[in-house]
Amino acid sequence: MFGARCLLRALRSCTSAPCPRHKPSARLSVRDALGARSTNGERVKVQGWIRSVRSQKEVLFLHINDGSSLESLQVVADSSFDSRELAFGSSVEVQGQLVKSPSKKQNVELKAEKIEIVGNCDAKAFPLKYKERHPLEYLRQYPHLRCRTNALGSILRIRSEATAAIHSFFKPSSKIKVPEENFFNVPAFLTVSGQLHLEVMSGAFTQVFTFGPTFRAENSQSRRHLAEFYMVEAEISFVESLQDLMQVMEGLFKTATMMVLSNCTEDVELCHKFIAPGQKDRLEHMLKNNFLIISYTEAVEILKKASQNFTFTPEWGVDLHTEHEKYLVKHCGNIPVFVINYPLALKPFYMRDNEDGPQHTVAAVDLLVPGVGELFGGSLREERYHFLEQRLARSGLTEAYQWYLDLRRFGSVPHGGFGMGFERYLQCILGIDNIKDVIPFPRFTHSCVL
Amino acid sequence: MFGARCLLRALRSCTSAPCPRHKPSARLSVRDALGARSTNGERVKVQGWIRSVRSQKEVLFLHINDGSSLESLQVVADSSFDSRELAFGSSVEVQGQLVKSPSKKQNVELKAEKIEIVGNCDAKAFPLKYKERHPLEYLRQYPHLRCRTNALGSILRIRSEATAAIHSFFKPSSKIKVPEENFFNVPAFLTVSGQLHLEVMSGAFTQVFTFGPTFRAENSQSRRHLAEFYMVEAEISFVESLQDLMQVMEGLFKTATMMVLSNCTEDVELCHKFIAPGQKDRLEHMLKNNFLIISYTEAVEILKKASQNFTFTPEWGVDLHTEHEKYLVKHCGNIPVFVINYPLALKPFYMRDNEDGPQHTVAAVDLLVPGVGELFGGSLREERYHFLEQRLARSGLTEAYQWYLDLRRFGSVPHGGFGMGFERYLQCILGIDNIKDVIPFPRFTHSCVL
Repeated sequence: MFGARCLLRALRSCTSAPCPRHKPSARLSVRDALGARSTNGERVKVQGWIRSVRSQKEVLFLHINDGSSLESLQVVADSSFDSRELAFGSSVEVQGQLVKSPSKKQNVELKAEKIEIVGNCDAKAFPLKYKERHPLEYLRQYPHLRCRTNALGSILRIRSEATAAIHSFFKPSSKIKVPEENFFNVPAFLTVSGQLHLEVMSGAFTQVFTFGPTFRAENSQSRRHLAEFYMVEAEISFVESLQDLMQVMEGLFKTATMMVLSNCTEDVELCHKFIAPGQKDRLEHMLKNNFLIISYTEAVEILKKASQNFTFTPEWGVDLHTEHEKYLVKHCGNIPVFVINYPLALKPFYMRDNEDGPQHTVAAVDLLVPGVGELFGGSLREERYHFLEQRLARSGLTEAYQWYLDLRRFGSVPHGGFGMGFERYLQCILGIDNIKDVIPFPRFTHSCVL
Repeated sequence: MFGARCLLRALRSCTSAPCPRHKPSARLSVRDALGARSTNGERVKVQGWIRSVRSQKEVLFLHINDGSSLESLQVVADSSFDSRELAFGSSVEVQGQLVKSPSKKQNVELKAEKIEIVGNCDAKAFPLKYKERHPLEYLRQYPHLRCRTNALGSILRIRSEATAAIHSFFKPSSKIKVPEENFFNVPAFLTVSGQLHLEVMSGAFTQVFTFGPTFRAENSQSRRHLAEFYMVEAEISFVESLQDLMQVMEGLFKTATMMVLSNCTEDVELCHKFIAPGQKDRLEHMLKNNFLIISYTEAVEILKKASQNFTFTPEWGVDLHTEHEKYLVKHCGNIPVFVINYPLALKPFYMRDNEDGPQHTVAAVDLLVPGVGELFGGSLREERYHFLEQRLARSGLTEAYQWYLDLRRFGSVPHGGFGMGFERYLQCILGIDNIKDVIPFPRFTHSCVL
């Protein structure tokens, strides 16, 4: 057996531990090549897709992109390299020297010594056309190819960065010293189970969050709904009031956004410049102001006094509609606004009874933001056994939720939590009108393109 | 409107930006209290659940746990605080002074000045019993309460840390200087879409990964299967061989594990001491050795020569069964082993044809590990249009996979990827026998406890 093991090990061409990845020519991503400080004629290898070809008498210019950055790397080659196959969309591997660029457009460029066509691209059949700026609606027809455009490339890089920002808001890396404003220093659990299950966890770990896909069979074709979307949910034990929750929500929005802005500057700029002009100022306005707070009752008063004619007449006890949310945000000067204390009758059994009257409310909170309306929803949860028992009994749910009642029998604590729709968050910060453009593969009613 | 906004803002009791969370007594997590360096009689507040009560003549000792660490905080109180309600499982808030402990068992303890019962716990009805070590099977009946035990607390904190470790392997925080061995410096995309969709993304971003829930309607009650499990998947463009992929897999396993071991020392120790004795050495053995590589053909030869009698006779062209996987790992000295180049007929249409003979294989790879068997599965993907077209035609899938063929028409690149079952990974490093014990809410056939 031992002999066999030695034999087997000999089959390995490369041990895993200190195996240098950079053998003959160092393989570099476009991003790393662009960011190279010293260009002492080092031989490198860059792989990617051709974004542009410009052929001059004696020189050939290519731009190579591999998705690692918005900017492409300029390759300068002898015109003898010119070939029909070096076309927009083709994949190539270029070896050469990274040198300082004489042009002011870029710091470095790659002086090609070898160009290898990896995969051809038939320009006629390729739905993306050279030098054309395709509208987002057009690109939606090609979910398998659209991420090779600047627009979707930028949006999806931002999505990736925002994912990381949210994780790091809740659970700062243990290698970094935890600054005080970071609220969550305990476990993160990814689960699709949703809020009631998250309450189980917060009943043992105090502060928990989850970030993952959520499924809703909503028969909606709106620009704000998807059948599969991503949700960030947090649940916190020992909270005393909605204030506590709102502080975390505002902190999450602002901290994650600042991180995205500083780590994806170019990509955000592209969105703010070409897709949603004016969004830069609108976002700054949201970030520099404290979010506002009004009660549901005040919200209805404001809507009743409005000069605008609504399709749905605003009335106490009835849910707010999109037109109402829009009006309220505008009324608040386009600053995100928390609406709190909703009618008990409108909300699910687990929300905490405010024990007020005559208009009976629960400690629920929604955050309305410009452009998309409801972004966050949350509440204090009913932690008092007898209150919850009565609410469950009234809905005939007592038996099914015995386990949920148990949480109130054995060391119950006041707690609350919230959820944020991730795609709506991206829409909000980038000013992207349609939710289908901020997720790689949108799934919605009557659609299964991919 | 402007007036209204000012009015609204006045409603806020606390602005969000520089609002000190620590008002009268600083609220501390148990972990932070235990780690406090200076104990200059600072007044603090700690909230959590009572893990033990010991009443002496003049002093009362409590241990408080809030899930932030395995260790609990010792509270020392005057015996006048003693009360029936201060029972195992109750939730409390304790205010007092953090002082140096005279005992060697802990550095600090909390001298209580005020103890508030937040929620009672009826000891008779509570399924967790004081000072008892409950078997994992017993705890499985109480998915809503079991995370309040030491065992599940530790396992789930490790799960959380392993999640973070995997994210940081693929996408190191941009605030930290990226060490060279970190392979993935480009976007991360969370999606449930799975491998074919991940190929779309790697065709634009070169290196991508996803980490999230996956659903399988497997009618299995085994200790290695769940209907909902978590999967890490990676897809890499411009790979040249299975070697490239195997290096990333081995790197992921080893790097993530090292991070978990160094960040969750106590929690891992608990598992290795009480749940799986001997596992510490077994894990070290896996970490310090290079993983092995054998071909499927060699594997079948080894099995055929085995003195062991298998229920399923090993034969070329037939899938490996659990009993075979176990034998192979043992044969390899309990070092994880990559099995490569499986029969074409056994594998899905997208795996790359090795064009060999007479025994026709594809460039597939599985990683077998001690205890759980198959942990990773991966392959090079067929990037050649005509090969793929023929395979699709043979399965009558050409029309449905036109989009997938498109990826080979427009700038195709050699690429490959793999998936790792996250729960099996946790089983493997911790030595946990049943997969239901490493996920907060296990979903499996004929079960819907929660």
